[in-house]
Amino acid sequence: MNTVITISRQFGSGGRLIGKLLAQKLSIPYYDKEIIFKAAEKSGLASGFIEENEQKRKSFYTYPVPNARWGIAPNNFDSFEAKIYAAEAEVIENCAKGGACVIVGRCADYVLRGKAKCLNVFVYADDSARVKRVMEVYGDAPNEKKAQKLIRDTDRLRSRHYRYYTDNEWGKSSEYDICVNSATIGIEKCVDMLANVYVAIDAE
Amino acid sequence: MNTVITISRQFGSGGRLIGKLLAQKLSIPYYDKEIIFKAAEKSGLASGFIEENEQKRKSFYTYPVPNARWGIAPNNFDSFEAKIYAAEAEVIENCAKGGACVIVGRCADYVLRGKAKCLNVFVYADDSARVKRVMEVYGDAPNEKKAQKLIRDTDRLRSRHYRYYTDNEWGKSSEYDICVNSATIGIEKCVDMLANVYVAIDAE
Repeated sequence: MNTVITISRQFGSGGRLIGKLLAQKLSIPYYDKEIIFKAAEKSGLASGFIEENEQKRKSFYTYPVPNARWGIAPNNFDSFEAKIYAAEAEVIENCAKGGACVIVGRCADYVLRGKAKCLNVFVYADDSARVKRVMEVYGDAPNEKKAQKLIRDTDRLRSRHYRYYTDNEWGKSSEYDICVNSATIGIEKCVDMLANVYVAIDAE
Repeated sequence: MNTVITISRQFGSGGRLIGKLLAQKLSIPYYDKEIIFKAAEKSGLASGFIEENEQKRKSFYTYPVPNARWGIAPNNFDSFEAKIYAAEAEVIENCAKGGACVIVGRCADYVLRGKAKCLNVFVYADDSARVKRVMEVYGDAPNEKKAQKLIRDTDRLRSRHYRYYTDNEWGKSSEYDICVNSATIGIEKCVDMLANVYVAIDAE
């Protein structure tokens, strides 16, 4: 097995859990927060500080620096955040070089484009299901209103981060091989489905 | 089995073939052009004329009639096209009442919302794969440029038709349970994947 599964996901969709269960089912490594810490070790930056700063851009429009559209590689950016991105991208490439694995988030689909055989997945869900998950499973919000705000804010950050570095649209189906609604299909069935597709594709 | 599979698809993605093979694999009825003819029989309109006219709206903006957004049901529209839509919707509902089946196109996902248990699928593919399919498999265009134009025009009509009657965005992942790239996954693997998911969901 050498195909890498990348998972992008709406906040509250359970995409991270799907990634974890999928890696377990396929007995391949799973990367998520670990990437941050590996990136931290590599770049010499304190991991706590990276965690706090990455993907926290306040507004896409307040950054008048060149982006991928203008042919300037992210690692030429003279900013702290760009260094984090570059360090993470290097870690992601190294993970992929190690063979089959699941990588959740971190623009991994874009980072590995043309560099590794990937199955790129986007996980989404209905708003009501996401609110329920954020409140009941994650315990991240005390009421519906706060859960909705957290979902909106987190997805906005993810979307901006993705667009900033890739110049593509986050969550647009054409960027992925499979997009799946975890609320209507169900977490376990998503895992089974992706595992089966993975095995079929990886065997090619 | 009683779940209905609806398939929306980009032109040239092979979504119709996937629907046909899926119905064969699951041994359930397949509806596509048949719907037009059933609708024709029902409404008393000549089927050839329906085929020619449905989905052929020249411009979305040239129709200043009310749409679903304003709470007016399509079958109240005083237009020939609306009558076709209403006749087709009735046929689709009857197909669904007959139990499990595959329905390709015709806004079936929207028509059956809240009326039948559905697995709503959107099939898409990279432009280059679609051009190749349109030229080599369908034989619908003699060269790349014409294939591209045909793809663009057909998808624009499908998109307008869908938006006009449903007020939703055609191809937007949140409208579907699964979206799949037929070019990267492959037609047969798409069929296998959807058949497996269908069996798992239908058993619930």
